[in-house]
Amino acid sequence: MATAAAASNAMGSVKPAAAQLPALILIRRVDTSFAAALRRRFRVLDFFASGEPLLPAFLLAAAKDGPRAAVVMGGGVARVDAAFLDAVPSIRCIVTTAAGVDSIDLHECARRGVAVANSGRVYSVDVADHAVGLLIDVLRRITASSLFVSRGLWPLQGDYPLGTKLGGKRIGIIGLGNIGSLIAKRLEAFGCVIYYNSRKPKDSVSYRFFASVHDLAAESDVLVVACALNKETRHIVNKDVLDALGKDGVLVNVGRGANVDEPELVRALKEGRIAGAGLDVFENEPEVPAELLSMDNVVLSHHVAVLTSESRSDLRDHTIANLEAFFSGNPLLTPVLP
Amino acid sequence: MATAAAASNAMGSVKPAAAQLPALILIRRVDTSFAAALRRRFRVLDFFASGEPLLPAFLLAAAKDGPRAAVVMGGGVARVDAAFLDAVPSIRCIVTTAAGVDSIDLHECARRGVAVANSGRVYSVDVADHAVGLLIDVLRRITASSLFVSRGLWPLQGDYPLGTKLGGKRIGIIGLGNIGSLIAKRLEAFGCVIYYNSRKPKDSVSYRFFASVHDLAAESDVLVVACALNKETRHIVNKDVLDALGKDGVLVNVGRGANVDEPELVRALKEGRIAGAGLDVFENEPEVPAELLSMDNVVLSHHVAVLTSESRSDLRDHTIANLEAFFSGNPLLTPVLP
Repeated sequence: MATAAAASNAMGSVKPAAAQLPALILIRRVDTSFAAALRRRFRVLDFFASGEPLLPAFLLAAAKDGPRAAVVMGGGVARVDAAFLDAVPSIRCIVTTAAGVDSIDLHECARRGVAVANSGRVYSVDVADHAVGLLIDVLRRITASSLFVSRGLWPLQGDYPLGTKLGGKRIGIIGLGNIGSLIAKRLEAFGCVIYYNSRKPKDSVSYRFFASVHDLAAESDVLVVACALNKETRHIVNKDVLDALGKDGVLVNVGRGANVDEPELVRALKEGRIAGAGLDVFENEPEVPAELLSMDNVVLSHHVAVLTSESRSDLRDHTIANLEAFFSGNPLLTPVLP
Repeated sequence: MATAAAASNAMGSVKPAAAQLPALILIRRVDTSFAAALRRRFRVLDFFASGEPLLPAFLLAAAKDGPRAAVVMGGGVARVDAAFLDAVPSIRCIVTTAAGVDSIDLHECARRGVAVANSGRVYSVDVADHAVGLLIDVLRRITASSLFVSRGLWPLQGDYPLGTKLGGKRIGIIGLGNIGSLIAKRLEAFGCVIYYNSRKPKDSVSYRFFASVHDLAAESDVLVVACALNKETRHIVNKDVLDALGKDGVLVNVGRGANVDEPELVRALKEGRIAGAGLDVFENEPEVPAELLSMDNVVLSHHVAVLTSESRSDLRDHTIANLEAFFSGNPLLTPVLP
């Protein structure tokens, strides 16, 4: 028993007294309060606390404890695919702390009867707020102005290139889900005109619908990417769409990096074929194309649109509620696959 | 005549053919299109184009042409006071390109029957948009994140301190005029709760009114300064108000620098007695207190909340419309003193 307990501790976090709790795999870093809340309720097999650098080896070891759920994050840190599910066949539920499920093979999960829950609407408001913040920042050159002042250039150079008015701008939103709708609502209050593209027109809104992203871009001053990443939306903003957006156009991306053809975006910005960009996500995070770093018409944030102290605590509560629902046989709160 | 024309040209801009046009004094730099539009309609005695470095000497020379109007800017470049009006007694109308008239002695103007017009609502929308942009930037740390990414720190350090949610925040607006009302309307769309302070309660709104700025600050998460600068509002945000706002509170100033006791603001930020600030205006522009330049919870812009390419062209049209109204004996469009 001493040896087993030591082995369990080597997995990261299991105390002998917790052996009766249901087991789950945790494959993301969480803060102290999230970790404590999980450990009060579950036997947590924690990849990042395990000391094991390789995920496959960790999964193989963890499988012996028969964990029935896995908490994962988005962004491709660990793909939940056939190999993952083969390694820990006891898993019947995946709870991702992301809204997007692009790093989860839903087909494989469905085939094996593995339920999947996501973060639901926990992040929606914060992402929408951040998208509007990025847009105002790009149009009104706030970060550029802050740097101009910080570098002591105001008394030396006086004026600085003018910003652009937000009011009256035509905003083309790609993806009118929770987040897209919240962005639309906010920008309406600024006097903007809302257009959108999605799989099909929504009866619930009066905004003008575009079946083609190219046509949406051609009619818009600003293009906001707020859709999920999947086969259909990978590189949905490509060279043609950027050229349709045009030299006065601004791109905001709070979806996924791969929704945009990033090398084409960099080229369009370098060549002045679009006017600017506000980007929270990138194709190969945390790598950001070096050319973007010095452009004063580009505002970058490091995939933090979802992140506030409030959303982090909401996420903790929401994740635990999904796990408790699963372990007690109740319906998931925010099922992607029930 | 040749000598007189040469003398006039030395004043900056008067062509002999323009001698019949009504004369005005211009005491601000304007762009080419604004300058051309003025010169098509008026004989423009242009201080900055005159080569005369001293305003009193310029005014003395200009007085000989009997100009009946003056176009001035805000921000204390030239105070329109008794000395100014004594130097050019022919002036019957001051048109300022600012919304605020704190650099104009209205009492002196009224006493002499000099009409005063301001920029009216030309800037209101842009200032309101900029205020919201500064607020989102501070709360969500957008400029800080952009710097973090630009410096290549994301792959090295991973996480960065969390931002704060905008939704649900209590926003205390000082001054619920055009700009304050537009800020309120925008922030309502983000789910914020609006409080305000002004000289008296407004019947037209249901927001909660505070007669005391101190009490407003104590009940608010964010304080937004959107009032005019006058004797009553100078340092309306002082040490007591900042302390009432408190360590989680954020200050946004799009009014005038002197609405805030700047040394006290710097001290409160340095000591963590408030959480952050978004500042477009400063007490001694273009000087900005050096301590602010390196604070990552402070977003600075260089008095550009009013400035977009759209507002600049609106300003040109609006200023000319006020001047044409004055010279043709019609009521001013946006009289401060009719």
